[in-house]
Amino acid sequence: MENIEQLAINTVRVLAADSVQKANSGHPGTPMGLAPIGHVLWSKIMNYNPKDPHWAGRDRFVLSCGHACMLQYAYLFLTGYEVHMDDIKEFRQLHSITPGHPEYGLTPGIEVTTGPLGQGFANGVGMGIARAMLAAKFNKDGFDVFNYNIYAICSDGDLMEGVSSEAASLAGHLGLGSLVYVYDNNHITIEGSTELAFNEDVAARFRSYGWHVQTVDDGNDLEAIESAILAGKDEKKRPSLIIVRTVIGYGSPDKEGTAAAHGSPLGTAEVRKVKEGFGFDPDTSFEIPSDVLQYYRQVGGEGMEKQQKWEALWKNYCQHFSELAETYENAAKDEFPGDWDIDLPEFEPDEKGMATRKAAGKALEAIAPYFPLLVGGAADLAPSTDTLIKGLGSFSKQDPGGRNLHFGIREHAMGAILNGITLTKGFTAFGATFLIFSDYMRPPMRLAAIMKIKPIYVFTHDSIGLGEDGTTHQPVEQLIGLRSVPNLVVIRPADANEAVQAWKVAMTHKGGPVALILTRQEIPILDQNYFTHACHLQKGAYILNDPPTEHKPELILMGSGSEVHLLLEAQTDLFQMGIWARVVSFPSWELFDLQDQAYKEKVLPADLHKRIAVEAGSPIGWAKYVCDEGIVIGLNHFGSSAPGNVLMEEFGFTAENVIQNAKSLMGRF
Amino acid sequence: MENIEQLAINTVRVLAADSVQKANSGHPGTPMGLAPIGHVLWSKIMNYNPKDPHWAGRDRFVLSCGHACMLQYAYLFLTGYEVHMDDIKEFRQLHSITPGHPEYGLTPGIEVTTGPLGQGFANGVGMGIARAMLAAKFNKDGFDVFNYNIYAICSDGDLMEGVSSEAASLAGHLGLGSLVYVYDNNHITIEGSTELAFNEDVAARFRSYGWHVQTVDDGNDLEAIESAILAGKDEKKRPSLIIVRTVIGYGSPDKEGTAAAHGSPLGTAEVRKVKEGFGFDPDTSFEIPSDVLQYYRQVGGEGMEKQQKWEALWKNYCQHFSELAETYENAAKDEFPGDWDIDLPEFEPDEKGMATRKAAGKALEAIAPYFPLLVGGAADLAPSTDTLIKGLGSFSKQDPGGRNLHFGIREHAMGAILNGITLTKGFTAFGATFLIFSDYMRPPMRLAAIMKIKPIYVFTHDSIGLGEDGTTHQPVEQLIGLRSVPNLVVIRPADANEAVQAWKVAMTHKGGPVALILTRQEIPILDQNYFTHACHLQKGAYILNDPPTEHKPELILMGSGSEVHLLLEAQTDLFQMGIWARVVSFPSWELFDLQDQAYKEKVLPADLHKRIAVEAGSPIGWAKYVCDEGIVIGLNHFGSSAPGNVLMEEFGFTAENVIQNAKSLMGRF
Repeated sequence: MENIEQLAINTVRVLAADSVQKANSGHPGTPMGLAPIGHVLWSKIMNYNPKDPHWAGRDRFVLSCGHACMLQYAYLFLTGYEVHMDDIKEFRQLHSITPGHPEYGLTPGIEVTTGPLGQGFANGVGMGIARAMLAAKFNKDGFDVFNYNIYAICSDGDLMEGVSSEAASLAGHLGLGSLVYVYDNNHITIEGSTELAFNEDVAARFRSYGWHVQTVDDGNDLEAIESAILAGKDEKKRPSLIIVRTVIGYGSPDKEGTAAAHGSPLGTAEVRKVKEGFGFDPDTSFEIPSDVLQYYRQVGGEGMEKQQKWEALWKNYCQHFSELAETYENAAKDEFPGDWDIDLPEFEPDEKGMATRKAAGKALEAIAPYFPLLVGGAADLAPSTDTLIKGLGSFSKQDPGGRNLHFGIREHAMGAILNGITLTKGFTAFGATFLIFSDYMRPPMRLAAIMKIKPIYVFTHDSIGLGEDGTTHQPVEQLIGLRSVPNLVVIRPADANEAVQAWKVAMTHKGGPVALILTRQEIPILDQNYFTHACHLQKGAYILNDPPTEHKPELILMGSGSEVHLLLEAQTDLFQMGIWARVVSFPSWELFDLQDQAYKEKVLPADLHKRIAVEAGSPIGWAKYVCDEGIVIGLNHFGSSAPGNVLMEEFGFTAENVIQNAKSLMGRF
Repeated sequence: MENIEQLAINTVRVLAADSVQKANSGHPGTPMGLAPIGHVLWSKIMNYNPKDPHWAGRDRFVLSCGHACMLQYAYLFLTGYEVHMDDIKEFRQLHSITPGHPEYGLTPGIEVTTGPLGQGFANGVGMGIARAMLAAKFNKDGFDVFNYNIYAICSDGDLMEGVSSEAASLAGHLGLGSLVYVYDNNHITIEGSTELAFNEDVAARFRSYGWHVQTVDDGNDLEAIESAILAGKDEKKRPSLIIVRTVIGYGSPDKEGTAAAHGSPLGTAEVRKVKEGFGFDPDTSFEIPSDVLQYYRQVGGEGMEKQQKWEALWKNYCQHFSELAETYENAAKDEFPGDWDIDLPEFEPDEKGMATRKAAGKALEAIAPYFPLLVGGAADLAPSTDTLIKGLGSFSKQDPGGRNLHFGIREHAMGAILNGITLTKGFTAFGATFLIFSDYMRPPMRLAAIMKIKPIYVFTHDSIGLGEDGTTHQPVEQLIGLRSVPNLVVIRPADANEAVQAWKVAMTHKGGPVALILTRQEIPILDQNYFTHACHLQKGAYILNDPPTEHKPELILMGSGSEVHLLLEAQTDLFQMGIWARVVSFPSWELFDLQDQAYKEKVLPADLHKRIAVEAGSPIGWAKYVCDEGIVIGLNHFGSSAPGNVLMEEFGFTAENVIQNAKSLMGRF
């Protein structure tokens, strides 16, 4: 048995070297160093069924060092997932399912898209939170239906990135015992030895976070690796880190243990040497000894039984706890209860009004009871972002059934953790902070957009209107920054009722994350009987108010959020002057761009060139909607510290300024 | 003396409560808790001269928890900086010098703009690196001319943010003994107790990074605080963290020790109680007992002597080490040696060409010898970004004279550290990574832009052209994301010679950071005799090639970087078809927008409506330059994993596609 295992491990090493060589790009060294760990995980530890990668009881595997993806592709192929030798041979080629970094949704068995370092580490923490929540909600005596683990492999780079520190501290705090992380301690980064920039005591650091830490001195010692992973699995109250000393490019006589093995093919001559060293035929590529394939296929095949055993348990569970089981299954099927939106508030018109953050908070509160796996929280800004859901408890070690999350002042980890939760079937997860701090969490938002999963971001304090906190806290370029991310829907509602509708869209949207952009300050609540009903927000932009029917609109005033009220104020005055302006509420570019041409033409007729867009943020991008003749009133500079209304006036966000611009556009002076 | 000190401390507390109350917004609790620490720093520890806040020998103070700025404003006022009681009374008001978070350049004595948590912590690490470099380069036996310390106060939030973990790990690695950080351990965050999300062992964590850690159990124990800070100062080989247990809102009977003291005024009734508790007149606001003012003014006044003593040392130094002294003074005056650019390469035309990252690397190498305080490095991507300057050594504990920095895989800290270095007079600092990872460092880039300081960012692997690394590594929205930041200049050169010119602009530009956007892949080098010379890059956009003089341009093809070559290829073919296109190389929107109207009209004549922009990135924003009639060929979606040239073709970045679009625009089918 020992020989076949060693042969199996070396097969993976050779396969990694071969495929990187054929692609003429990639990272051979890390898979070669990690192969024994991969072997232990896939052949002795993890519960998975290659024939059903989505089985709810499976263990999760996260390759945080995504550049080592040939390791994962090799095991997916060898254990019998729908990843074939032809796919391996197409590594890093157009339309293949084996891209340069693992991609969720593209390759069967890949749980999460990784590559940007640190992200996978924190995604796993999100998976661990979801796992603890599932267990708390559904497991019953004798029915440990959610009892899986989250295994991850991470690299020096993962541990150097701040996001992993944030996530690790929180995971320790929350006592996420389902996490079993292996740290590939190979001492090598791209610039050379880790001694150049990284000599902290990783074990002590993780112990300080409350992790269970073990060390394995020899990355080829299968027994030591296995027993450490088993001990990590047995530790139920703390996340586990296993520090394994590996050798990058193990088996490459001239490059092992050096940065040269990291990010480039080894070279054909060196690949020959690798093969010779491992007793493979140097003239043959992509050689899989048949007993190795048989060995792994058998191991993979055993997953079917594991799944069947779990399904029998689940069936039994369904009989004993039918209501709970139904709850889970509905959530997992993404089925909405028919009446989920009936408690959503509709706000009466009010000149003083309400901050949209507050209205959104009330919407969230109205929805939450209908979705038992709707969870979320803030990066220490729950009171300021109005996102604490009353009566649903706070998730903690002591109360894993709580649904409010306290991320701490860790926006980056929050973003990545939301991805991990969202990737767990059944969950909808939201995270809240000030819009300005969306800058701290762009990498995970981008990954959510790439994966087309839907965390919901609640970003409040959305403009200079937040006031005295000043320049450092006032968003300017953040809106356009979010709008520029493909697959991300950005919605900036104009009043309390639009804010409610925005939550409705956020819940029902599919295909990517949704960001709600909300005011800190109170803004008027519009009369839904007089103005167009806020439910039209779902179209992205709509005619909020037109001139009296006898007057054809000759000018369009468009904008989003708090600025819409300036437009309405200006419109009234312009009517007095005989200037017939249409006001378009424009909460979401992305939703509007999805509408058909006829609708777009109705809202923004091609022959109506005179247009003004007003938004207290960067003007970039509005040109597309106002056209050459139009005017954009935006902010080309940073804000300042003063009361919000003072700043709005100082920077030209007044009805008067809109009127001046409208008059000038209409040739009226 | 004890009584006056206690009175002084309580005066600061009352002043903080008063000014937040008057502003009707702000953070009273932290300054109230921190006043004893502030007192010790400003009256017993720090070397500073309120009459000359820029003196090179001064200690630096960083308030990483910028929301506690009333603490700093109070001490700046009390010790005699150009911050007056009228300014304090204008706290958080328009045009005041006392904004809601401290701003560099606005308020005398503020060393760095802080507020977004974690940044100040990492900025201080940058200052510590600069300080170590200055000492290594200039200090001589008996002439410790650069011997100052960097003092910082940081909060729970600072320590939770990942950027501080990154920076702390690096600071420990580098043994930055000049850092003396105080951690305001008040157990309170906005959501409540730190127990909600933060129970790691901070002392153990920092020891694992290699820091010297002390604990003070009572934040009112002046002797203990002073002796700990002195011990931190004496520790020359390790950065120091002093964990001080404080009480937020100390002195507020109903709110101290709770989140209620954090982010809102205490309320007039409560402020009265604070005053009564400290023996102040509850009916008087902004009361400064005259002996307190006298006490602090005297302490502040002693700074003049300290500075004079330092200046005498410097004068003496100038005599002994005149060359070194001149080197420093020229750098500090931002004076360029006349011949600094003579070694810049000029590349011969070459169809195969060169990656712009490589050309930029050669430019950097040519410039570096002329600027002894030009330093920088990469986030573990020096080989890939071509930014290791040969022969100048690597900065480390052992070699503090090295000029290449190894940031590790810590982009966020890199950005913040660059700010800290750049804030140290004389230094120009650059940092390099892949463009995609600019997403990890947006917060410090924004702060550099707010401060109008000039770190230089070298962002390579600038598009889908990077190839096989795939979706997760291919920038799409990053260019527009950077362009949307006010005060940030973005330059994407089209060939090796433009890359050289880009470095030239980067060196000479003032008023904000500069980002160079460079290719991984080789692109042709244009013939500078045939095409317009690359030095015109400094104008942001220029006519690279026009039709033969007998033909008036009827179409403009514009673009940046690698795509410019498609435009030239298309232009040649279009000439054959009798379509007379102009090609505009458009490396920088920001530089072009700075040009006068006449120049803009020359390049993009208003009556020439037919325009095509081509850029392998988000099309957002180009509408401004191509006008309504024009076409933007960009990327509205994420990339894919395949060889770069395959992707360029797959996604329409071909001369053929440009030609098709040009023909359609010209009505030619």
